[in-house]
Amino acid sequence: MEETLRNIKAFVFDVDGVFTDGGILADVNGELYRTFDAKDSMAVRMACMKDYRLAVISGGRSESIRQRFLTCGLKEDDIFLGSRAKIEDFDVFCQKYGLQADEVMYFGDDLPDIPVMQACGCGVCPCDAADEVLEIADYITTRPGGKGSVREALTMVMKLQGKWELDVQEYKRKF
Amino acid sequence: MEETLRNIKAFVFDVDGVFTDGGILADVNGELYRTFDAKDSMAVRMACMKDYRLAVISGGRSESIRQRFLTCGLKEDDIFLGSRAKIEDFDVFCQKYGLQADEVMYFGDDLPDIPVMQACGCGVCPCDAADEVLEIADYITTRPGGKGSVREALTMVMKLQGKWELDVQEYKRKF
Amino acid sequence: MEETLRNIKAFVFDVDGVFTDGGILADVNGELYRTFDAKDSMAVRMACMKDYRLAVISGGRSESIRQRFLTCGLKEDDIFLGSRAKIEDFDVFCQKYGLQADEVMYFGDDLPDIPVMQACGCGVCPCDAADEVLEIADYITTRPGGKGSVREALTMVMKLQGKWELDVQEYKRKF
Amino acid sequence: MEETLRNIKAFVFDVDGVFTDGGILADVNGELYRTFDAKDSMAVRMACMKDYRLAVISGGRSESIRQRFLTCGLKEDDIFLGSRAKIEDFDVFCQKYGLQADEVMYFGDDLPDIPVMQACGCGVCPCDAADEVLEIADYITTRPGGKGSVREALTMVMKLQGKWELDVQEYKRKF
Repeated sequence: MEETLRNIKAFVFDVDGVFTDGGILADVNGELYRTFDAKDSMAVRMACMKDYRLAVISGGRSESIRQRFLTCGLKEDDIFLGSRAKIEDFDVFCQKYGLQADEVMYFGDDLPDIPVMQACGCGVCPCDAADEVLEIADYITTRPGGKGSVREALTMVMKLQGKWELDVQEYKRKF
Repeated sequence: MEETLRNIKAFVFDVDGVFTDGGILADVNGELYRTFDAKDSMAVRMACMKDYRLAVISGGRSESIRQRFLTCGLKEDDIFLGSRAKIEDFDVFCQKYGLQADEVMYFGDDLPDIPVMQACGCGVCPCDAADEVLEIADYITTRPGGKGSVREALTMVMKLQGKWELDVQEYKRKF
Repeated sequence: MEETLRNIKAFVFDVDGVFTDGGILADVNGELYRTFDAKDSMAVRMACMKDYRLAVISGGRSESIRQRFLTCGLKEDDIFLGSRAKIEDFDVFCQKYGLQADEVMYFGDDLPDIPVMQACGCGVCPCDAADEVLEIADYITTRPGGKGSVREALTMVMKLQGKWELDVQEYKRKF
Repeated sequence: MEETLRNIKAFVFDVDGVFTDGGILADVNGELYRTFDAKDSMAVRMACMKDYRLAVISGGRSESIRQRFLTCGLKEDDIFLGSRAKIEDFDVFCQKYGLQADEVMYFGDDLPDIPVMQACGCGVCPCDAADEVLEIADYITTRPGGKGSVREALTMVMKLQGKWELDVQEYKRKF
């Protein structure tokens, strides 16, 4: 496992149930809103500042997801919305950056995530993921989705690679 | 019980306290917003893809409920809002599709749901339903409303009937 | 205690921390939104159908509070918003309906509620009320604010008085 | 510790994870909404009425943060938004009011808060703060962020200084 984690160069995330507790607030126009966690967001910004490749592959289609991850440092092209066959988007992302699948950590929590979790180097899920995902995950965080699960796994990898310190001046410049 | 579950051809749901934790967010215009669970929604889409009949019978009147369930594959006519005497709407639904009451699983959590829960084939409630409902339910999920209660019961029925697998290409086509 | 409860003819409520978990969602215009509980709301409607006198006395000023309680059957004049010296509004309410203070159950959770809780017949608070309120409450519900605290106390009183049954046809007529 | 607490004349707060549980609701325009706690807000108003100096230093930029704290009695100039190097804003605040760093209690929960927590008289964090913050905090509240953490620490200080009583008439005048 440690060998695998030392090798990680990219983080790819599902959104609902990973960055959130699965809750989706619905308004009268059919627009959907999610609640993100500030500490998870901080960890994504840390990864961005240390030059990891980052992507989001979500079944959701809300513009709010795009907005949220742009402010966390992701590039517009690396935010895949309305994804149904997620493995296809995952392959696009890996080819774009010349990444081997085993250099990528993927975060998922439900049925559509399973093919990617099995293809990538390390499939991570929160402790409240669907049973089918818990069974095939390489790593299960102690925290549930939306409550620090992403932070926990990112911290683990980045500490192991000696990249978990905040440079306040760089933070000021980049965000 | 297993005999009953093998016989289920339709799922009918109350909304508040079943698909949600009972929380209703109120805005200044009197509009109300609910928070749905992504894994529950996935389960409803799974049931839709396997051709179960699906309906919602809610006391709520918000257009947001309609929007939410349309995107989960329900038909507009099968979303009953502002329902007070729920058994009447339940009968309309059963007659429309030629369903016997004992072929229908109904999900409820509060007083207005009791007549339907007693009339249907299997009355399900989340573990945090009202006391009066817990007393008469045929099946109580281990999870509370809005936190996987619907997913738990749907998975149970669909696995028993051999219908719990995701066909990614069909998922892509239908949603 | 039972004697006191049999005597109750009116329910008066603080809002934040009683009907909610204390959470206040703030938007960019300074407008505030609360999340109410469906089962609490049902209990208020039950009390309304059984002709109890009902009032809300809140420090909050949001129009959304008024809207919410109008749909639960309260009269516009009995929804006191922006209340600071709550005992004054409480007295107005009691005089209007010729109620003795000891015929009124009051629900509060924080410092501004204490004078009314001490003046009324039965001061109720949720189990997560402020320490100062927990100390002086006549009755502490087993549930926290926004999660069935109001339902619990209303059910107790109405069952004791033989008024806790839902007449579906009346429900249909009134709401 | 008691000596330190008796000396406190000002409270300075981070927002996300301190006044909130870290949850940030995102809308389609990139606007972000937070959920504040009514009892925390009451405690800030109490501190305001007793003439403590109060400031907020947040990395967040949402106008909703400003609106929220204006209604709690903070002065517009003492609400620092979009702060990246928080120690700089902290120094501005201390100089403005002639405060020694050790007369200030600072509330933080994540990496950007650490320099201020180490510079101030008493660095407080909620029990669910980031590990790095828990390690260096002078005081850890028993409650998590957004659920009474601020209330707990403010009550402790103000009771120790004999300033924790509500004057209803002053409350009416000021808020």
